[in-house]
Amino acid sequence: MFCESNKELKTLVEEARTYTKDGKVADYIPALGKANPNDLSIAINYPDGHCVSAGDVSEKFTLQSISKVISLALVLIDRGSKEVFEHVGMEPTGDPFNSIAKLETMIPAKPLNPMINAGALVVTHLLKGSTNDEKLDRLLAFIQTLANDSTIGYSEEIARSEYETADLNRALCYFLKQHNRMNEDVEQLLNLYTKQCAIEMNCLHLARIGMVFAMDGVDPETSKQVIPKEVARICKTFMVTCGMYNASGEFAINIGIPAKSGVAGGIMGAVPGRFGIGIFGPALDDKGNSIAGIKLLEMLSKNYRLSMFGATHENIINVFNN
Amino acid sequence: MFCESNKELKTLVEEARTYTKDGKVADYIPALGKANPNDLSIAINYPDGHCVSAGDVSEKFTLQSISKVISLALVLIDRGSKEVFEHVGMEPTGDPFNSIAKLETMIPAKPLNPMINAGALVVTHLLKGSTNDEKLDRLLAFIQTLANDSTIGYSEEIARSEYETADLNRALCYFLKQHNRMNEDVEQLLNLYTKQCAIEMNCLHLARIGMVFAMDGVDPETSKQVIPKEVARICKTFMVTCGMYNASGEFAINIGIPAKSGVAGGIMGAVPGRFGIGIFGPALDDKGNSIAGIKLLEMLSKNYRLSMFGATHENIINVFNN
Amino acid sequence: MFCESNKELKTLVEEARTYTKDGKVADYIPALGKANPNDLSIAINYPDGHCVSAGDVSEKFTLQSISKVISLALVLIDRGSKEVFEHVGMEPTGDPFNSIAKLETMIPAKPLNPMINAGALVVTHLLKGSTNDEKLDRLLAFIQTLANDSTIGYSEEIARSEYETADLNRALCYFLKQHNRMNEDVEQLLNLYTKQCAIEMNCLHLARIGMVFAMDGVDPETSKQVIPKEVARICKTFMVTCGMYNASGEFAINIGIPAKSGVAGGIMGAVPGRFGIGIFGPALDDKGNSIAGIKLLEMLSKNYRLSMFGATHENIINVFNN
Amino acid sequence: MFCESNKELKTLVEEARTYTKDGKVADYIPALGKANPNDLSIAINYPDGHCVSAGDVSEKFTLQSISKVISLALVLIDRGSKEVFEHVGMEPTGDPFNSIAKLETMIPAKPLNPMINAGALVVTHLLKGSTNDEKLDRLLAFIQTLANDSTIGYSEEIARSEYETADLNRALCYFLKQHNRMNEDVEQLLNLYTKQCAIEMNCLHLARIGMVFAMDGVDPETSKQVIPKEVARICKTFMVTCGMYNASGEFAINIGIPAKSGVAGGIMGAVPGRFGIGIFGPALDDKGNSIAGIKLLEMLSKNYRLSMFGATHENIINVFNN
Repeated sequence: MFCESNKELKTLVEEARTYTKDGKVADYIPALGKANPNDLSIAINYPDGHCVSAGDVSEKFTLQSISKVISLALVLIDRGSKEVFEHVGMEPTGDPFNSIAKLETMIPAKPLNPMINAGALVVTHLLKGSTNDEKLDRLLAFIQTLANDSTIGYSEEIARSEYETADLNRALCYFLKQHNRMNEDVEQLLNLYTKQCAIEMNCLHLARIGMVFAMDGVDPETSKQVIPKEVARICKTFMVTCGMYNASGEFAINIGIPAKSGVAGGIMGAVPGRFGIGIFGPALDDKGNSIAGIKLLEMLSKNYRLSMFGATHENIINVFNN
Repeated sequence: MFCESNKELKTLVEEARTYTKDGKVADYIPALGKANPNDLSIAINYPDGHCVSAGDVSEKFTLQSISKVISLALVLIDRGSKEVFEHVGMEPTGDPFNSIAKLETMIPAKPLNPMINAGALVVTHLLKGSTNDEKLDRLLAFIQTLANDSTIGYSEEIARSEYETADLNRALCYFLKQHNRMNEDVEQLLNLYTKQCAIEMNCLHLARIGMVFAMDGVDPETSKQVIPKEVARICKTFMVTCGMYNASGEFAINIGIPAKSGVAGGIMGAVPGRFGIGIFGPALDDKGNSIAGIKLLEMLSKNYRLSMFGATHENIINVFNN
Repeated sequence: MFCESNKELKTLVEEARTYTKDGKVADYIPALGKANPNDLSIAINYPDGHCVSAGDVSEKFTLQSISKVISLALVLIDRGSKEVFEHVGMEPTGDPFNSIAKLETMIPAKPLNPMINAGALVVTHLLKGSTNDEKLDRLLAFIQTLANDSTIGYSEEIARSEYETADLNRALCYFLKQHNRMNEDVEQLLNLYTKQCAIEMNCLHLARIGMVFAMDGVDPETSKQVIPKEVARICKTFMVTCGMYNASGEFAINIGIPAKSGVAGGIMGAVPGRFGIGIFGPALDDKGNSIAGIKLLEMLSKNYRLSMFGATHENIINVFNN
Repeated sequence: MFCESNKELKTLVEEARTYTKDGKVADYIPALGKANPNDLSIAINYPDGHCVSAGDVSEKFTLQSISKVISLALVLIDRGSKEVFEHVGMEPTGDPFNSIAKLETMIPAKPLNPMINAGALVVTHLLKGSTNDEKLDRLLAFIQTLANDSTIGYSEEIARSEYETADLNRALCYFLKQHNRMNEDVEQLLNLYTKQCAIEMNCLHLARIGMVFAMDGVDPETSKQVIPKEVARICKTFMVTCGMYNASGEFAINIGIPAKSGVAGGIMGAVPGRFGIGIFGPALDDKGNSIAGIKLLEMLSKNYRLSMFGATHENIINVFNN
């Protein structure tokens, strides 16, 4: 994938990189702890095929929670929104992503939304396929199409590391199972879920996927609707209301771009109708979002008025893409 | 205010009105219980001064929670976002609007956002003015400017009724005071807050206010920036993430219009860059939103692709406004 | 074990039995659902070897939660109270026995007491033994000594049924494991715990065990201290503060006898210094306690002034035992 | 009131006094902050009129939460337990004494027990009398009878200080009022409640009141039943299950004496059938109990086997009273 290095973006990256020292690489999954906290890279992918970037864009990372929005898209395609929302809610929550308490106080234990772990586990359990391999292969094929790269796979090492330390997700699964929110074998589901989280790519891929969401699900290279419009719309809505863990509200206020982050340091952004963004910066803030990645998005949003919630009737020159 | 009756809108209103029978007029504030549950009216206000409507648009109602977003705008103007967000958070919550529990589990008791009662009370206490009368006058003047009608006032009867039954808000105030979130006299604050909630208008006014938010704070008639862009942006963001009580997530998914509802049955919508919407339908669903009003917005959003989260690159003909 | 049928007790049993129709046999563990809801039996065991009873005392049932207090006794003997209370708290709770929410809000997730499931699982995981078989054999031997019957075993059918439906306990285990409250294999622990819960006896056995607790741990037949005084004291305290699920407070007020119930319908009582009580009545109230069993204890306590909290300086004739 | 100074007790007091340095005088009520943290005194009152003491027993202090158990006794006498327990529950809770969250999650907001603030406020609102003065006079007269001293009154200074800083209790009251748990004027109720909390006495008085509870409500000097047996029993039960804030469970395990503490540093104990204890030590632990007072009770309980839950059939020589 060709992506031109951009001087203006580079300046922003260097400015944002100074914030990495205030963050911390995730270490609750041991294999993630090896990342270099100073890394920071960004790519912006336009529907016309143009791509600009800065930082070491070849650096690979795992999707982690970013995978939640992609598996949600596939499950919505597979089953339709009516069936999916019988299993998982649509409401944002002020609680942390791994919280179990609300499940109990809101018996019959329907997870509030698909971006918290409980909801994402329910979504993954709805992936179609007769075996885990089949389900994973379908999800990978979907992601390869979105990223336009058939070599994308998952990191066995990180999947294994995560599987071995997934006791909190086990607790969530068994709680959901007890309350008939799913009936699958828990270890099988965690096996699949940890592989989904360990799907690996670089920020160029992530930017391209974001661009497809931004363009309402159309892949501009092929003009094919790879995600139905309604599904792309639903996904972007969740990215706004609950894409950045329990800093989603602040992110919407300050930045206003549909985005989803993961604890490996990735952030996927989708500026509606305009372009996709892929960021990798593994040093995290205390909510689990890439600390320098958020700074970078804040600068982009302020400088180029990218917030969905403002500046709507201005004449904005297409960012970097001239 | 002139507003043309529109046949297409009328058809939609009649369809939506069939849902009023599944709702219930709010009665926890006795004076609200007198509303006619079958009422339903709508106005759409365009920046070019055009206005279309259906239903009995002269029917007046009190703003209730809709006032939260307007007082927030004024307080942001008065004090700047930095100071305001030291007192109130930015995060949506899965809890009901009148919940106190989260305040306790998240000591030091900073309300999660300005759209729940605890947060709105903190915002109102930040209104500038040396007396309650002065604060209320400033808020009324602000609203009169937004609605372009200097006769707008508040209902003394409903303010009094609400003040007399505001024990839950009293509990919230004293809890906040105990934790140094505000230091004002509670009865004084409730006196002001219940008057703010009792500000009275019809759906034409509401549509015009929504239009100003939609146009990033510019009043197109005077070309004056009556709300700073940043403030209009912040308000619209909160309308998306937490404007419709704890059905905000579902509303964002299904409808995708920044909107704020009140228990008197009003809904104010702001379609970014396009138009404002005012709705009145006092029969409420179990979350406290106008049941037929939401149906009406759902039909509008589906028919005319109004969701912020989708259909962004399509060529859409300006709704009703030709 | 010889136990004389008693006419006065029989009258009380028949009166209490009328309440069984308001209760329901536990069915969340399928094998328990087979019990006869009309069953009700009681035995009272005195330190002088005397025993009185009423109802079909040969009916066997599984201990379920009653086993929590006995395994606690053995673990306190094995490890001393200092070590045990580093793993589990001493405070009663208003939450249901199977609640997980408090674990989360009180991170680092120390279960509030050993009578709720989370705490009991931690206690069972502290049982000494190099294998599950060894641990279970030690617990069975301890119980056989207390009940003075070496034939006591466990129901494989009920253990299996419970193991297969133990997803909520699995969730609790994994949550505790995530927070380093235990490091054992969860399935192994549940295997042991469900066998512990499935230990089977009749009300004569239960009354004898209660009598040993009542007599501060001394077995009067052998004059041996089979439970150290301090351990017997601690167990009786927990029986008062949290022995009857979240009806413990009401039970203490109305009845005032240290007691522990189980969802199979058993209740073990220990009237300090006087006698032990064993009851079996599988129809449960909504808190999970034997509905007729509680009525029976209420009548006994009122008629014979058995509450620990009252009538202390009166001269009470030894109940039934003359 | 004559009370003999006792050498053995004095030794224990001096040993316990070393713990005062680990505690802190309550300062959330400003007027309480003036107490001397090193103070520690104790009195033990026997039904035969004998009294032993150590420390500066003339030091006066306010009852604070200790008043909760005495007003409960009077309200139970006034209205009977049936009516009282329609307003307040019987269950202990793991939450702090001033918590509001559980009220919300357990709507319709019945306070879990009369020893937490919410429950105590409900109890005080049930005191009979046509005015606050009359209610307070009745409560004072009751306390004067129990303590056998008609000069007992309340500290106006502390009542006022507490009233002025009672915003959390105001929040609880309005929450309860909203949910129809009481319908009294909140400021009136708080006026009465803070005076109740500010009732002032020394540890000799407190020991005598404890003795009356210990003797099932009989005043041995007059042989009159000043508290009905059932009421004395209920009060002692609450003292065990929830008398020492959310350290009640630990206190029951380690000490096993029905007791009630207050944040001014008082502890009233009632050893059933034997004697009453009054302690004053204003340095508090982090749960709000007198830190040296608890140590002192622990030594007493261990040395003289005072726990209700153990040593029941031993022949214990009457403590200090020979």
